[in-house]
Amino acid sequence: MPTLTLREIALRLRCRLEGDGEIEIRGVAGIEQAQAGDLTFLANPKYHSKLRTTSASAVIVSDDQPAEGIGAALLRSRHPYLAFAQAVDLLVPQTPRPRGIDPTSAVAPDAVIGPDVAIGAFAIVGAGATVGARTTIYPHAVVGPGARLGDDCTLHAHASVREGVVIGNRVVVQDGAVIGSDGFGFVKQDDGSHLKIPQRAGVTIEDDVEIGANTTIDRPAVGETRIGAGTKIDNLVQVAHGVSIGRRVLLAAQAGIAGSSVLEDDVVLAGQVGIAGHLRIGRGVVATAQSGVPNSVPPGELISGYPAIANREWLKSSAVFRQLPTLKKRVADLEQRIAELEEKLAAWQTSTRQ
Amino acid sequence: MPTLTLREIALRLRCRLEGDGEIEIRGVAGIEQAQAGDLTFLANPKYHSKLRTTSASAVIVSDDQPAEGIGAALLRSRHPYLAFAQAVDLLVPQTPRPRGIDPTSAVAPDAVIGPDVAIGAFAIVGAGATVGARTTIYPHAVVGPGARLGDDCTLHAHASVREGVVIGNRVVVQDGAVIGSDGFGFVKQDDGSHLKIPQRAGVTIEDDVEIGANTTIDRPAVGETRIGAGTKIDNLVQVAHGVSIGRRVLLAAQAGIAGSSVLEDDVVLAGQVGIAGHLRIGRGVVATAQSGVPNSVPPGELISGYPAIANREWLKSSAVFRQLPTLKKRVADLEQRIAELEEKLAAWQTSTRQ
Amino acid sequence: MPTLTLREIALRLRCRLEGDGEIEIRGVAGIEQAQAGDLTFLANPKYHSKLRTTSASAVIVSDDQPAEGIGAALLRSRHPYLAFAQAVDLLVPQTPRPRGIDPTSAVAPDAVIGPDVAIGAFAIVGAGATVGARTTIYPHAVVGPGARLGDDCTLHAHASVREGVVIGNRVVVQDGAVIGSDGFGFVKQDDGSHLKIPQRAGVTIEDDVEIGANTTIDRPAVGETRIGAGTKIDNLVQVAHGVSIGRRVLLAAQAGIAGSSVLEDDVVLAGQVGIAGHLRIGRGVVATAQSGVPNSVPPGELISGYPAIANREWLKSSAVFRQLPTLKKRVADLEQRIAELEEKLAAWQTSTRQ
Repeated sequence: MPTLTLREIALRLRCRLEGDGEIEIRGVAGIEQAQAGDLTFLANPKYHSKLRTTSASAVIVSDDQPAEGIGAALLRSRHPYLAFAQAVDLLVPQTPRPRGIDPTSAVAPDAVIGPDVAIGAFAIVGAGATVGARTTIYPHAVVGPGARLGDDCTLHAHASVREGVVIGNRVVVQDGAVIGSDGFGFVKQDDGSHLKIPQRAGVTIEDDVEIGANTTIDRPAVGETRIGAGTKIDNLVQVAHGVSIGRRVLLAAQAGIAGSSVLEDDVVLAGQVGIAGHLRIGRGVVATAQSGVPNSVPPGELISGYPAIANREWLKSSAVFRQLPTLKKRVADLEQRIAELEEKLAAWQTSTRQ
Repeated sequence: MPTLTLREIALRLRCRLEGDGEIEIRGVAGIEQAQAGDLTFLANPKYHSKLRTTSASAVIVSDDQPAEGIGAALLRSRHPYLAFAQAVDLLVPQTPRPRGIDPTSAVAPDAVIGPDVAIGAFAIVGAGATVGARTTIYPHAVVGPGARLGDDCTLHAHASVREGVVIGNRVVVQDGAVIGSDGFGFVKQDDGSHLKIPQRAGVTIEDDVEIGANTTIDRPAVGETRIGAGTKIDNLVQVAHGVSIGRRVLLAAQAGIAGSSVLEDDVVLAGQVGIAGHLRIGRGVVATAQSGVPNSVPPGELISGYPAIANREWLKSSAVFRQLPTLKKRVADLEQRIAELEEKLAAWQTSTRQ
Repeated sequence: MPTLTLREIALRLRCRLEGDGEIEIRGVAGIEQAQAGDLTFLANPKYHSKLRTTSASAVIVSDDQPAEGIGAALLRSRHPYLAFAQAVDLLVPQTPRPRGIDPTSAVAPDAVIGPDVAIGAFAIVGAGATVGARTTIYPHAVVGPGARLGDDCTLHAHASVREGVVIGNRVVVQDGAVIGSDGFGFVKQDDGSHLKIPQRAGVTIEDDVEIGANTTIDRPAVGETRIGAGTKIDNLVQVAHGVSIGRRVLLAAQAGIAGSSVLEDDVVLAGQVGIAGHLRIGRGVVATAQSGVPNSVPPGELISGYPAIANREWLKSSAVFRQLPTLKKRVADLEQRIAELEEKLAAWQTSTRQ
């Protein structure tokens, strides 16, 4: 592991140094696990108090973080989280990317392979496929016939890029992800059986997309499935046929988007969210974990629950949900009290009439 | 891409032609994306108004669709969606299926391989396995020892068919799907540890089943896991050990079925639905997206929510859920009003008694 | 299939025999499917009545199970489920584990391979990796550079063990599971784009863990992701970066745990449960199916719902949820009745004042 002085790190991360610049930093660690010689970072505001107890030699903090009580040296940044990302890149060694084309790989004679491409053992590049410069294909990844990968992409082991799929530059596909599997499209026939609608149209993955492990992205019958530039998709996510996802969208693990829905730019789906088919989710919409979205959502909304509603309303309703047994009892009490009142009043009315 | 006149297409799709039969049709497209030369289809009733604005040269519509205002030629069908499926098959070229047995594949000497089977690079057919006529095994698919595949099946890349699994005819398995992994069966021992119950029984997939990408179907300890004929399973679905699924069932993406449950014929689970273990879901039951089903369900029900209840009731309760803060306030108001009434009445009672 | 007399089986399973010890037992089957010659077991209390109607020749029951009405011979056990697991192991033949190192596999020259290791066709063991004694690597599994597998492990087909992952002894990884994929960690930059935080830290899987098919376990940027000894993970589960899971934890299918959360020993998550990030789930917590857990949970709780609350409260609230339309109507009725009372009282007050 490389060792750098804190002063050097501050320089490279463009942080303002407070404390001893000569400290040797060996690694980056979480605020609780960090030891002497480690640089750390306040990832979660919950752990704010840990700034005072961490054993780290240095901490990346925001410009306005009060220094009192913190024993470690400080690296101040306008973007502490960004500085942390850079620190990891600087201090944590990377497994070197493989080089060359493994003799056991199967590259079609007519495939077009760019300069400095790495292709691992048993990986396949199909007939007529294109692989851009400096792209890395790990062992056991399959690039189907006619598929196109751009420059500087990474396909991890067991990834399937099916026939004709088009992938831009700097796209990362984690292990076991499937791009271009057949959409789930069937027609119910008179006898109750389901006839397959041939799913032969394409999938386009734009630049700088990341696709998580074992995530699946289907091709449609007509049109295309598209993932916009800079979108990041976590593991085990389902993107159905004909879905169109905008730029810089974040899809957390196990989210699912049904057929033909549109997610505009900057949408965020937390874990296990489900989006029904044929919807439009407006720009910047955020759906909290496990939300189920049965209707289109205008831009900018923060939504929760199933069926998903405005988060603020959902929080209030959820709070009352817990009190429902009490609320029900209160209603029953009211019914009893009002019955008594009615009775009393009736009796009295009778008595005063007499 | 083939070009056909609209008249020829009408003939092949058994549609009634209204308009210029000489139009050359080059492709099939969605109603919004279609250009001149395209045939399109009204996939979603939401888009009904788009019939008038589409640039498509022709549209497949139902027999009773009013023609007024539609500029495109019409192909009338009793089953427009079926005709659309056939149109895709007719007009969108298919990547040709691979042929022959790739020299890099590993086929066991005692495996029985039918006529016209295709086996891709690095694919494996284990000892004693059987592969039926015209079945296509894509690169990197693994057929375990003793497994049996019928005729005209397709195993896509990275599919795992484990030892002894039995698969019928015309079954399609998408990339990365796993059939026959060990069921999740453990016994808690006195020391709190979990002893594995050996999962050694079989999985049977009947004819005309489709299994989605990265879906998992487990084998049980005893008995079998069975998927009935004509059932279609989407991506990332979990079918646990000993589950029995009937015929023509539809399981949308990310649905999960716990151990030993039975789904009768024609059940439909929408996306992310969960079925608990040891249940019976009656014929034709439909569970809407994200439903959680903790109890058996009689045939024909439409269910929703968690715990799942009749969809009609769930819709009503969900509507009230959103109003819960208001409802709570109304109850509080009532309590105050009734307290005032009670007080007033008591005071009055006292005063009139005097 | 081996045949044993019931007496021999009783001896080996340490059960008390009631009935004819000379019966030949050929197999183990479910209580409904069992035929003459089969041993069965009461797996689900729901099926209690089936003890009287089963065709099995013998049934494993608890010590205190009344014998009356049961036609089959009995094997009495203090732990019937454990005895069942042993019976399966005894009576159901196992596909023999493969032997030797397949000539088509790719084992790095500097990999350390223990005695009696089996490595299947096209499997890969990367540079500097270690594989312990008697470990079985099925075809197409990939062990990344520097990864370490202990003794007696099983990696099924298409499993990905990424670079540097450390796996203990007797660990089973089902088909297509991914261990060590990159965590979903990005920093939002000023221009709205997401910068990847390099995910280079490790994953440790302790002894006796089982990992289900197509499950994904991510590596973090710093620190580690850890799965404790004896923990069992079902299919399609997501374990995010930096998660720490204790010992003997059970994670059912499609559960998901977001980044940096801690699950203490003996936690049980049922199917499709979601745990948010940076939480601590206390020892022995049980979350029922589809629960969504947004906050830390103290040890020993049984929780349900979304947001998850105590199961008992959730059951009560869920019961009222179904009655919400009625409850709303009752509130409306109360409002009307109280308005009438108020009116009546006001009128009366006026009249009596006169």
